Amino acid sequence: MKTEDLDTPVPVIDLAIVDANLKRMQDYCDRHGIALRPHIKTHKIAKLAERQLALGAKGITCQKLGEAEVMADAGIEDILISYPLIGPVKAKRLAALAGRAKMSVAIDSLVALETVASAAQMANADIGVLVEFDSGLGRTGVVTVGEALDLAQKVTDTPHLSFDGLMTYPASEASVPFIKQARDAFAAAGLSIPKVSGGGTANAFRTHEFGVIDELRVGTYLYNDRMMMGVGHAELEDCAFDVVVTVVSRPTPDRAIIDAGTKSLTSDPAGKGGPGHGLIREYPDAVIERLTEEHGMVDLSACETKPEIGERLRIVPNHVCPVSNLHDSVLVLENGSLSEWRVDARGLTR
Amino acid sequence: MKTEDLDTPVPVIDLAIVDANLKRMQDYCDRHGIALRPHIKTHKIAKLAERQLALGAKGITCQKLGEAEVMADAGIEDILISYPLIGPVKAKRLAALAGRAKMSVAIDSLVALETVASAAQMANADIGVLVEFDSGLGRTGVVTVGEALDLAQKVTDTPHLSFDGLMTYPASEASVPFIKQARDAFAAAGLSIPKVSGGGTANAFRTHEFGVIDELRVGTYLYNDRMMMGVGHAELEDCAFDVVVTVVSRPTPDRAIIDAGTKSLTSDPAGKGGPGHGLIREYPDAVIERLTEEHGMVDLSACETKPEIGERLRIVPNHVCPVSNLHDSVLVLENGSLSEWRVDARGLTR
Repeated sequence: MKTEDLDTPVPVIDLAIVDANLKRMQDYCDRHGIALRPHIKTHKIAKLAERQLALGAKGITCQKLGEAEVMADAGIEDILISYPLIGPVKAKRLAALAGRAKMSVAIDSLVALETVASAAQMANADIGVLVEFDSGLGRTGVVTVGEALDLAQKVTDTPHLSFDGLMTYPASEASVPFIKQARDAFAAAGLSIPKVSGGGTANAFRTHEFGVIDELRVGTYLYNDRMMMGVGHAELEDCAFDVVVTVVSRPTPDRAIIDAGTKSLTSDPAGKGGPGHGLIREYPDAVIERLTEEHGMVDLSACETKPEIGERLRIVPNHVCPVSNLHDSVLVLENGSLSEWRVDARGLTR
Repeated sequence: MKTEDLDTPVPVIDLAIVDANLKRMQDYCDRHGIALRPHIKTHKIAKLAERQLALGAKGITCQKLGEAEVMADAGIEDILISYPLIGPVKAKRLAALAGRAKMSVAIDSLVALETVASAAQMANADIGVLVEFDSGLGRTGVVTVGEALDLAQKVTDTPHLSFDGLMTYPASEASVPFIKQARDAFAAAGLSIPKVSGGGTANAFRTHEFGVIDELRVGTYLYNDRMMMGVGHAELEDCAFDVVVTVVSRPTPDRAIIDAGTKSLTSDPAGKGGPGHGLIREYPDAVIERLTEEHGMVDLSACETKPEIGERLRIVPNHVCPVSNLHDSVLVLENGSLSEWRVDARGLTR
């Protein structure tokens, strides 16, 4: 790829690496009898979702109705919204989706249950329901088995709704005790748990060890990023998504400014992936020490050779999911040539 | 405004507050004989730029060519790009702009100067050039008066280019010694400095005290945010841009989850504006302690009353500029009714 001719900053995806990442995860799931339901929030591109399904994914996961609407428009038929939908506005949109795709939704409260029930009634269509529990992350999800059982029973009592099982994020050892307790409690109540859905790329290849996860929701695995390198899921050669930038200023011998700031790279940290705001492939000893909105300040003091003004640099982002969401389109490198793909669900926050 | 019917998360702008903020800044500049050249990177909306010009702004500032193209499409005629443009791809786009608007560009290197010169030649049109200097922020900008003079002289020697003056960000006491030194050095070389352009909302109302700034580039002042409250520029009633969200989960008595995470609010901190990821107007004692992509985790332990699932909350963002950039449109509240305005230059990173 000749980066010199590119207008920057621009995300460039290496499709060969994407395909290898997709295949590695699908093979893992196939080997262990785990259903793969990729989370499209990372790429938000219908063509990539279709690629995931073609390899064997059982359906997709979306976080927002807007993402699901775009994916249903592209003809995708089995969609889980792993996020509580609340209130009549969301119910109406969910109803419209239920009329044209096999929808399932995660809930963790009665209000969320009522929203899904109302959507199913409006659509006169069946909607699957997963009850989300908290396995330690402390965001959504019920915190006791009793609450999960109560919600599951109410789901089974509601016309058009089916109880599809339990869901959590992330899948880890910490989720095992809850699931085992839930199995006993549900069995005692005469209710089966059709599946347990877990998520997260970081622990993905350990999912079989937990012994309780039937379905895996993963997003980042197709691109990978510096955070995934930090947790040991990926090596640099597994990272498929770079932001190509230009050095626009060299005010001092040890400082370079690149034409990408938080509006191109976000201000998300890399966690264990290293210091600064992204890894520069050509200058791994450089540190992108600060970002303002459109500037990236690069400390070159540890670099033996240093980039010139005008030089293009390829940056592996700290956290690729929100970066992907900042760009209307990505350039896709396939067999040596680049084409532009629209990020179909970019910015669909609702 | 009835927030109950809104599909969330959604940015809502109070136009009366915007207008008051615009007027306050324009009045300040008029009172002190300072030209106002608002930075549209905060709002990225042509209609708001037109409002700024109608009140007396002398032109606008853009950070990227994409923003300038959108504003030129809307008929805006005087545009400064306060950012170094580097290389032939940018030169071609700048040339196209120079053919239809009065363009000026900031430079801090010979390569940037050559890019502008090449654009002016291509367009056979004049382009103004400001030489940027670093007043302590450590991003772009020359660091010595000698470099500034050398660039300014080269600008005056280049066909179609005019030396419009010096530029820095932010305007502060720290910029004064450089400007005074530059005045002497430029005078000795027989070169006048037509203007000095400074920027930044935080210090804006102190610009006259510095005694050396002729033009003010400010963006955030029209909306304000938690960061501007932290530095003492704004009070809560001056904040015009809220993100309206819904409480989607209440897993524990002290925890609420809102349907906005980093993809709606960014992960930018508020600086002195306070802890967490935004100020909840209805529950000022609540702390949005963590964000993931689509979840906001709210600590309610300090709140006397606590929100229910389904309740709408209005959040003043930490840093409004990148938040505005995440949303395709905003709802604008004017005389009690809401209309949807497109964020015209949203996501134009290039």
